[in-house]
Amino acid sequence: MSVARIAVVAGDGIGPEVIDQARKVLDAVLPGVEATEYDLGAARYHRTGEVLPDSVLDELRGHDAILLGAVGDPTVPPGVLERGLLLKLRFAFDQYVNLRPSRLFPGVVSPLAGVKPGEIDMIVVREGTEGLYAGAGGGLHRGTPAEIATEESLNTRHGVERVIRDAFARATRRPRRKVTLVHKTNVLTHAGSLWARTFDAVAAEHPDVATEYQHVDAAAMFLVTQPQRYDVIVTDNLFGDILTDIAAAVTGGIGMAASGCINPERVHPSMFEPVHGSAPDIAGKGVADPAAAVLSVSLLLDHLGHADAAHRVAEAVAAELAGRTSGTPLRTAEVGDRLAAGAVG
Amino acid sequence: MSVARIAVVAGDGIGPEVIDQARKVLDAVLPGVEATEYDLGAARYHRTGEVLPDSVLDELRGHDAILLGAVGDPTVPPGVLERGLLLKLRFAFDQYVNLRPSRLFPGVVSPLAGVKPGEIDMIVVREGTEGLYAGAGGGLHRGTPAEIATEESLNTRHGVERVIRDAFARATRRPRRKVTLVHKTNVLTHAGSLWARTFDAVAAEHPDVATEYQHVDAAAMFLVTQPQRYDVIVTDNLFGDILTDIAAAVTGGIGMAASGCINPERVHPSMFEPVHGSAPDIAGKGVADPAAAVLSVSLLLDHLGHADAAHRVAEAVAAELAGRTSGTPLRTAEVGDRLAAGAVG
Ligand SMILES: CC(C)[C@H](C(=O)O)[C@@H](O)C(=O)O
Ligand SMILES: CC(C)[C@H](C(=O)O)[C@@H](O)C(=O)O
Repeated sequence: MSVARIAVVAGDGIGPEVIDQARKVLDAVLPGVEATEYDLGAARYHRTGEVLPDSVLDELRGHDAILLGAVGDPTVPPGVLERGLLLKLRFAFDQYVNLRPSRLFPGVVSPLAGVKPGEIDMIVVREGTEGLYAGAGGGLHRGTPAEIATEESLNTRHGVERVIRDAFARATRRPRRKVTLVHKTNVLTHAGSLWARTFDAVAAEHPDVATEYQHVDAAAMFLVTQPQRYDVIVTDNLFGDILTDIAAAVTGGIGMAASGCINPERVHPSMFEPVHGSAPDIAGKGVADPAAAVLSVSLLLDHLGHADAAHRVAEAVAAELAGRTSGTPLRTAEVGDRLAAGAVG
Repeated sequence: MSVARIAVVAGDGIGPEVIDQARKVLDAVLPGVEATEYDLGAARYHRTGEVLPDSVLDELRGHDAILLGAVGDPTVPPGVLERGLLLKLRFAFDQYVNLRPSRLFPGVVSPLAGVKPGEIDMIVVREGTEGLYAGAGGGLHRGTPAEIATEESLNTRHGVERVIRDAFARATRRPRRKVTLVHKTNVLTHAGSLWARTFDAVAAEHPDVATEYQHVDAAAMFLVTQPQRYDVIVTDNLFGDILTDIAAAVTGGIGMAASGCINPERVHPSMFEPVHGSAPDIAGKGVADPAAAVLSVSLLLDHLGHADAAHRVAEAVAAELAGRTSGTPLRTAEVGDRLAAGAVG
């Protein structure tokens, strides 16, 4: 029996290059992984018109986790791969915890003046299966002056409570034990009230966890002016989308940012992917940074119960970043080799 | 006849202090303004339970513009003053252009490393009367495990087109002539498509204006990593709320940020206010910075057709900020005196 069955979606652009390194590292720290490659993304869509055939969705279901590189290119109409592939997987596999750590590693330059490595270390627990991502929108009178379009944010106590519980559980495992709820309760009063009341109820069960609430606009500002203040942020799907890009920006850019779309109960496979896109401009040149893809492997290992291996992978990335000298060109495969060697010790 | 009839809502906390300075400056550059004070905000709400009586709304209607300090304090439940006063005015007076300039003034320290004064100079044209701010939400089964809550974003061609036209008109009056549309067309496909198609149609009428599109998460990131790239941003109500706080953060904080809720046709009064809140912690001490309130007066003057006076007020603020030495405590009234003197020349 294999130690884990991983579906690999390398995808488009730099996806295959960074995924090669991610697999190198995964194989090094967890020998015996059974990896199956799935051809999905812009290339397949252009070739066949298919985005995610039902048969593939069923096959993916049989895996312990999915490792994804990047999908998309500028010639695919907006929404096709996002709704048809990425969001389809998040919803079909009930990946309700969209986990995005942001840590300023030594050796990485923050765009913020005077912020020192180690000072920023937060995770954003973004809800992944509800809100404005539910696809509940429509329109009338398209192309006429009378046109209207709607988008609806759907929120359930079920969905809100489980992601808030997950955030508190993660906070209790971190030294600072603090959870910040971010919403916009002063304008989105219905959803805001549901989120706030649920947050308060779960907080009451965790007297050892410090809590605070911030409006999303204030949080967006504080992520720039005082990112050090955050430990765990829990927020809705769209706010999480925006805030995690700011968090990535202040910790060195999305080139370094990993993410997991997690079904914590492991009823369905979770998916791990770098936050960066397919970067067609640098694809095929062997210069893409695999750090984010490899950090995503660390999240994958942690999710599958290999906390030790997860830690070693993250530390290998930290060591790699600390050792980089600016100006030296980066070679994707060499970085992968170093990370694999570093992670096995 | 007075040169302009201005309704003044000083509001709560530091509101009255900064509004005193704003009025000083307004009177100095535009003698003969007829100002009427309206008591609205948290204090009135606590005293009388009233937020915005219809009779007051009717009186406000008779003015050329409204100058607002700040309303609110932590003891008012979320949404009461926001929905009942601020948003009520924006919607009742069809203030569809929520204008928020962000400029890094000489003398002001950006939290971003290596960004020099003058390099950041953008305006965000935020839609003010539609989207998720429409108040179209609801819920069921409150307080039970079956609870759901919804929030709906309502977008019309009418509303989207007029604000995009306003953004292009403003861009043609600026040296760089560039408009960036920010939305989330890959997920909010219905509203996103309406915004994108309308943007393209208006852009086609303005071949002299450069255009680009960005997803809101990418824009949030670029506001941190490359704020210099923006000239005019046009976006929806909620995205604008978030992006303008980031833009304020990178240009020195919301202490410096002015805003106008504008009805461009002047059918209804427009409202001008600093972006900062009532700051109860420093209220009454005479140390609040009136810069944002005075910059709001500059926007008010510009809106009422006094471009020259508007310019002089903005330059007076710029000179004041350039002359500040860090560490010297700020006295609200003295700053107001200097700004008034500076603006008359
Ligand atoms: C590609 C898109 C659907 C996606 C999102 O909005 O969630 C991306 O921005 C992300 O953050 O993973
Ligand atoms: C107070 C609140 C209603 C308001 C908004 O969300 O528009 C504020 O954040 C702003 O930006 O003016």
